[in-house]
Amino acid sequence: MSRVLVTGATGFIGRRALGPLLEAGHEVHAVSTRPPPGGAPVGVIWHQSDLLADPGEIVGSVAPQRLLHLAWYAEHGRFWTAPENVAWVEATLTLVRRFAAAGGERAVVAGSCAEYDWDHGGRCVEGSTPLAPAALYGSAKNATREVLEAASEQLGVAVAWGRVFFLYGPGEDERRLVASVTRALLAGERARTTAGAQVRDFLHVDDVAGAFAALLAGEVTGAVNIGSGEGTPVSEMVWQIARATGRRDLLDVGALPDRAGEPAAIVADVRRLCEEAGFTPAIGLEQGIDATVRWWRAARA
Amino acid sequence: MSRVLVTGATGFIGRRALGPLLEAGHEVHAVSTRPPPGGAPVGVIWHQSDLLADPGEIVGSVAPQRLLHLAWYAEHGRFWTAPENVAWVEATLTLVRRFAAAGGERAVVAGSCAEYDWDHGGRCVEGSTPLAPAALYGSAKNATREVLEAASEQLGVAVAWGRVFFLYGPGEDERRLVASVTRALLAGERARTTAGAQVRDFLHVDDVAGAFAALLAGEVTGAVNIGSGEGTPVSEMVWQIARATGRRDLLDVGALPDRAGEPAAIVADVRRLCEEAGFTPAIGLEQGIDATVRWWRAARA
Repeated sequence: MSRVLVTGATGFIGRRALGPLLEAGHEVHAVSTRPPPGGAPVGVIWHQSDLLADPGEIVGSVAPQRLLHLAWYAEHGRFWTAPENVAWVEATLTLVRRFAAAGGERAVVAGSCAEYDWDHGGRCVEGSTPLAPAALYGSAKNATREVLEAASEQLGVAVAWGRVFFLYGPGEDERRLVASVTRALLAGERARTTAGAQVRDFLHVDDVAGAFAALLAGEVTGAVNIGSGEGTPVSEMVWQIARATGRRDLLDVGALPDRAGEPAAIVADVRRLCEEAGFTPAIGLEQGIDATVRWWRAARA
Repeated sequence: MSRVLVTGATGFIGRRALGPLLEAGHEVHAVSTRPPPGGAPVGVIWHQSDLLADPGEIVGSVAPQRLLHLAWYAEHGRFWTAPENVAWVEATLTLVRRFAAAGGERAVVAGSCAEYDWDHGGRCVEGSTPLAPAALYGSAKNATREVLEAASEQLGVAVAWGRVFFLYGPGEDERRLVASVTRALLAGERARTTAGAQVRDFLHVDDVAGAFAALLAGEVTGAVNIGSGEGTPVSEMVWQIARATGRRDLLDVGALPDRAGEPAAIVADVRRLCEEAGFTPAIGLEQGIDATVRWWRAARA
């Protein structure tokens, strides 16, 4: 058992990571800027702290052995280019330095498939697919990883970096694809999408959270893709939602024009995740969409 | 004329950059943690501030239009792997963000040839030679550059990044190659060196400082190599020192074993510096070593 600190604990992944960490027997501390909506989950020791204002305070007072750092600027639509990304590089580096100084042993940080060169196409493999982020968000994540990996030995902290691909699931921002199509169809409204020929690697948020919990408990260091390993056309994803909601009649695939510059395929190679981190995603697309639709149906009720 | 702030103003490059900036007609503000030894140069407005403790304070109070950021952890021997590199990434990003918020328009930051993949060999060209730093220092510089370049538009600050190659000259740390060989020969002591077959790009610190002043005055953005463009074997460099000191008899080239893993050649491509930044190095190796030896001779007297 370790004393674990989770940042971004009220976020999309953070909320779903607390359960797996408790089940693994850790002493789980969570930190967020605002109190958790609905109160802290049973068994989690909650702290309120503004990581951007003072990234070191919380690690100084909790003195965790392991750190799961999920907090970042994540405002839908804005996060790709927001200058807040720069402040989060600074806060993340300070946090990990102070974590190390307070006796921390292992940090797992959320990275992104946006670190890869998406023009390189297809399957992204850690350590060989070129890293060439197209937007500030990816550059900021990639630069943070570069510094933490290079400083790991000097800081005396093992660092694993979970590169999250395209996640979906209960509690997702309502403006994102899966949530917005699901909510429209459940409300009996038409959902208009692009032709959706582009292939993405979708993974249910509970599998993403489970992968992070496995990384935290394990000993793998460096970048590890967190994806399903399977490419799914976006059109197939939205048809799954139509199937699960029973409203194929309301789905207009191809009604919106394709966005310029969308890469054809972004898929995770998950050999490191499965073989080295020992985590195999368990929730298939059909099952994951069923669960997500059920959750939104209940949330509407 | 611009209001210019120079960080690291007591450093090896910083001290030599103040003159060219004054000559260019700028209002020159300098900042350092400790007061300048021997007092502030005439015409320079000096500020004392600890950039690591509060990187934003000085740009808030001076409100410079242009920023020449040279400060970094530079302790001889230690800087390659020191954890202080991480804190300097944070301080640099905060500094540039706060510079932007205070109305700053253009920042020029000191990078390093250590950002390049030295195994790639030979001539380093901005934008095409792979970036793969071998040590934390290079990773920290490279990551800082990546974030600043990606954030430049959002922050509203033009960023140029001067990649310094192998500099030498008056006032260099006594433990570095040129200074230590020069001082030994001037003291009438034997100087033992490796065979020195490895080729490096040496540039006199006054040319380095002049290049930074040109970058600050100009409009080039992105990475710009600061070197001579010429490769010189290290043995040739030390023989130049022996010639200039008149003590060839005291030089034992090849007396020390080669260091493992030394790359064969690291040379700057200087087309961007000369053609786009409009700066051509003026001090050849022979002339530069003569001036350096004269300086050390005077310093001994």
